[in-house]
Amino acid sequence: MSPLSSGAADLSRFSINQMTVKQLSLPELADSCLELGVPGVGLWRAPVQEYGVEAAAKLLRDAGLAVTTLCRGGFFTAIDPAERAAALADNRRAIDEAATLGTDTLVLVSGGLPAGSKDLYGARERIADALTELGPYAEKHGVRLAIEPLHPMYAADRCVVSTLTQALDLAERFPAHQVGVAVDTYHIWWDDNAPAQIARAGAGGRIHTFQLADWTTPLPEGVLNGRGQIGDGSIDMREWRTYVEAAGYTGPIEVELFNDALWARDGREVLAETAARFVEHAA
Amino acid sequence: MSPLSSGAADLSRFSINQMTVKQLSLPELADSCLELGVPGVGLWRAPVQEYGVEAAAKLLRDAGLAVTTLCRGGFFTAIDPAERAAALADNRRAIDEAATLGTDTLVLVSGGLPAGSKDLYGARERIADALTELGPYAEKHGVRLAIEPLHPMYAADRCVVSTLTQALDLAERFPAHQVGVAVDTYHIWWDDNAPAQIARAGAGGRIHTFQLADWTTPLPEGVLNGRGQIGDGSIDMREWRTYVEAAGYTGPIEVELFNDALWARDGREVLAETAARFVEHAA
Repeated sequence: MSPLSSGAADLSRFSINQMTVKQLSLPELADSCLELGVPGVGLWRAPVQEYGVEAAAKLLRDAGLAVTTLCRGGFFTAIDPAERAAALADNRRAIDEAATLGTDTLVLVSGGLPAGSKDLYGARERIADALTELGPYAEKHGVRLAIEPLHPMYAADRCVVSTLTQALDLAERFPAHQVGVAVDTYHIWWDDNAPAQIARAGAGGRIHTFQLADWTTPLPEGVLNGRGQIGDGSIDMREWRTYVEAAGYTGPIEVELFNDALWARDGREVLAETAARFVEHAA
Repeated sequence: MSPLSSGAADLSRFSINQMTVKQLSLPELADSCLELGVPGVGLWRAPVQEYGVEAAAKLLRDAGLAVTTLCRGGFFTAIDPAERAAALADNRRAIDEAATLGTDTLVLVSGGLPAGSKDLYGARERIADALTELGPYAEKHGVRLAIEPLHPMYAADRCVVSTLTQALDLAERFPAHQVGVAVDTYHIWWDDNAPAQIARAGAGGRIHTFQLADWTTPLPEGVLNGRGQIGDGSIDMREWRTYVEAAGYTGPIEVELFNDALWARDGREVLAETAARFVEHAA
């Protein structure tokens, strides 16, 4: 019997993002989810492509697991026309993959400053240009795009959209069923404007996913793989869950951790721990 | 003849923060400034205390160098009463030292979350409590307190004041000659609200110092010593200088870098390079 089975009802909103346990193959991930009573998974394009998109879709469908998001499209900020065309083509493929996997949400990491550029404003406008092309394409495939504001420490090299306010300013240029936002505690927890922006997003039907990670320090070199296990850091998960639910969000809650220490451990054990932490701190 | 002497007039607003060239002793720093035509220095408490506060004051006065700021007071967020009393006492000493050094500005790094706390709001209120006590003390000594918003990546462990907006919301509870803000490009460059907040600060006479550092990636482990040399990163220094000057700021412009690569080099060479970069990118 699973150590969590007595509390299985509390996992009804839980989804495990594949990156949290990237040491597990897709079949191992599906098996572990079934064993623990985890109802959904968020997927990443590279491991899904490696396994085969159709095969992954079948595997998860047969296991009865919901695919809550696909990560990720984006990287829209190039200036060079050929690079921009390649990014758009790649994002159309990402939308196709999302549709094949049966998820309604493609998460977007919008891209940083092009080499040598210091123009955040121009980069944000190029994101809007890309969404003008991709929004209708996504709608046609039953997929919603979720602009994820990334923590300001990624503004130069990864994502010039640094706050929920900026993400909504972009998203609201488009219909909500085409473009919304990803609310991720790790990126917004420091921002005293974020609760009001969650309300704004909810009122517009634009909270397309809600993701959890905790903030732990010291940050590692490169600051990519420091997303802390739920409960280990400075973020009050229940507070943020309250904000999104007050804003009308009733969807899955994904735990997405990038963390070298977790990746070095047994993946099933990490998944069980993560589910238990979700129940303790966020359910 | 100094390589910069032909452009010495362009250094009239330049001040070198002591941490940028911490490998130099105070006498070496003073000599190098005189040689290069650098008119001002921003000081740090620890090396000044080590040299002797009175002796440092005399050294810099005799050299004709302005002390543009003293870094730093702050760390106001403790909950424990004894810790809070100790912080207040230490900040009174910092104000005394600033007055002795002849600078009108003490920069405040307000402090992070106490161990185990997740309450950013409460921590910010404790900063306000401390300023209620320290503001009048500073005024009596002819010193202004400058709340420095630190980049959101420091919110947990160093400074819960993450934006100019938050810093001004705090500062405006007090008279401007007691409490203002530090505008530092490194901490605010990503924030599209910052230009309007600089205008707000200037209108209230609350820009108490303006500091430069560039944003370079990848960030180092712990993210403390990644402040990039001017011109090496993503920040348009002239743009930010334009904002503070449009807001009425006419004071010194300090370059404050924490950077292991710069610290490993000859300090006089780094100072000359920094002055040259200031002229090239910000004068």
